[in-house]
Amino acid sequence: MSQTVFGVDIGGTTVKIGLFDTAGELLEKWEIPTRTENKGAEILPDVAKSIQEKMKERGLERNDVAGVGIGVPGPVDGEGIVHRAVNLGWGEFSVKEELSGILKMPVMAGNDANVAALGEMWKGGAQGYSNVVLVTLGTGVGGGILINGHILSGSTGAGGEIGHIHIEDHETENCGCGNKGCLEQYASATGITRIANRILKESTDPSLLRDGEVSAKTVFDAVKQNDALAIRVAKEFGRYLGDGLAAIACVVNPEVFCIGGGVSKAGPVLLDYIRPSFLEHVFHGSRGTGFVLATLGNDAGIYGAARLLLDN
Amino acid sequence: MSQTVFGVDIGGTTVKIGLFDTAGELLEKWEIPTRTENKGAEILPDVAKSIQEKMKERGLERNDVAGVGIGVPGPVDGEGIVHRAVNLGWGEFSVKEELSGILKMPVMAGNDANVAALGEMWKGGAQGYSNVVLVTLGTGVGGGILINGHILSGSTGAGGEIGHIHIEDHETENCGCGNKGCLEQYASATGITRIANRILKESTDPSLLRDGEVSAKTVFDAVKQNDALAIRVAKEFGRYLGDGLAAIACVVNPEVFCIGGGVSKAGPVLLDYIRPSFLEHVFHGSRGTGFVLATLGNDAGIYGAARLLLDN
Repeated sequence: MSQTVFGVDIGGTTVKIGLFDTAGELLEKWEIPTRTENKGAEILPDVAKSIQEKMKERGLERNDVAGVGIGVPGPVDGEGIVHRAVNLGWGEFSVKEELSGILKMPVMAGNDANVAALGEMWKGGAQGYSNVVLVTLGTGVGGGILINGHILSGSTGAGGEIGHIHIEDHETENCGCGNKGCLEQYASATGITRIANRILKESTDPSLLRDGEVSAKTVFDAVKQNDALAIRVAKEFGRYLGDGLAAIACVVNPEVFCIGGGVSKAGPVLLDYIRPSFLEHVFHGSRGTGFVLATLGNDAGIYGAARLLLDN
Repeated sequence: MSQTVFGVDIGGTTVKIGLFDTAGELLEKWEIPTRTENKGAEILPDVAKSIQEKMKERGLERNDVAGVGIGVPGPVDGEGIVHRAVNLGWGEFSVKEELSGILKMPVMAGNDANVAALGEMWKGGAQGYSNVVLVTLGTGVGGGILINGHILSGSTGAGGEIGHIHIEDHETENCGCGNKGCLEQYASATGITRIANRILKESTDPSLLRDGEVSAKTVFDAVKQNDALAIRVAKEFGRYLGDGLAAIACVVNPEVFCIGGGVSKAGPVLLDYIRPSFLEHVFHGSRGTGFVLATLGNDAGIYGAARLLLDN
């Protein structure tokens, strides 16, 4: 039986790669640049080369490696076919077959947010659960949904695109996706900053946020110091996110929401602002849904990618 | 190999039972009363008795029957455990084990709306699809979600409770569930009537709806005759439902929405009012989601129940 597995997380600027034992212990991790030139044609060959070099360096034979799991920043369906990954320049093709063709070993591919959810379930904040929604609050709002331990990819790989749930009818600015009033416009790091700047402008109240940079971090730092204006920002953020999560719970009824991404570094205080609106609007059958914080940070993707391969 | 299967759909007043061949042809269907007295303790014994009598009548031996699938009006988890079915007086117990214990044959149980989705996928409007959201527009709004052909039950059997997605912040009346602003308050037959009565009161415009009973049926009959006020009602209904379905598509990215329930008898015109708001608010990755009408009517439950048994 193979004793190791590679987990790969492709980002817009770097590719993270981890070598794991099959029990999920991270043996080593490293990064290579993501070469997006030439429509990203070099990305998978670069990944393959890096894996082959690592195998050589460690004296790993083909039989020592179960295979490679890979997370991609774009919709990936259940067959491992990516349907456009804009940041990489990729159109539609089978990531699974292309990488497997080079490496001559099993490959499984998934959307990066979905794969990160697997990672948090396996070795992170959502351990012990199998029906999980990972909510990644970063530059945008990403989602990864696990049903009975398996990724919900959706019919065209667009499952778990929870950042684009329409949540506000009165928005005038466009979301990055082109729509108006998406959850991501209020609950991402960018969204929190936007809410804060709007409230700072509307109000003349004093606030710690008036001294220096306004960001999701400075907002929640100020919340922890009982800054009234920052608390208004946090409440507005929490109302939108709590509402969105209540809608998600009505659809998939998870055991737990696992909150990750840069914004989640604010810690448990975040949940204090999400829960009230969630409880106000969720169906009673889902009131018991738990909330946990993600713990793997940027490594969730490589953990989850490794697990994706091992699951299949 | 067994050649027949029973599909059972438990309602608040009658239990529908169907005998099918394993290819899904309905051989016979009948009803028995639902005896809700004594906390519904007689319901499953009554079902068992009716099935045993039918087997005797038709000369079916135990080996001729694959088993019994059963749909229940309440949350049922993946293990066949019902978590309260208020209309039946039931608390928490294993429907699967109780009925299987009496009949000495395999039993599978699911929530009635989820089971109906299986029926529409197998023999109804959603044939040819395997990622389906059945939207049942009746007295309430029910949902049944199929992922790769399998029911999404949710962790406590509350998956697909799409009627209780919070969709309107400014509602003053309570939904049956106790919350305010649930999709069901606008998109059910009752909800459509409520919208119509409100608009009739607010406006003095002439309308066919002023002559006689106001119902979802009379609203859409009037829409077909180009009644301006009825069209306003249909637009408001469609805006809420289109919005709700867009949120659902962001979560599970189905191939198709299958619209059923009494309201769906209005026919394809219904979709003309749902689609615009859906397309305005859905994430681009789910813009291609199809819309079809359910075709099995009240038989969807018995078809789906039979299929549920055969799938397991």
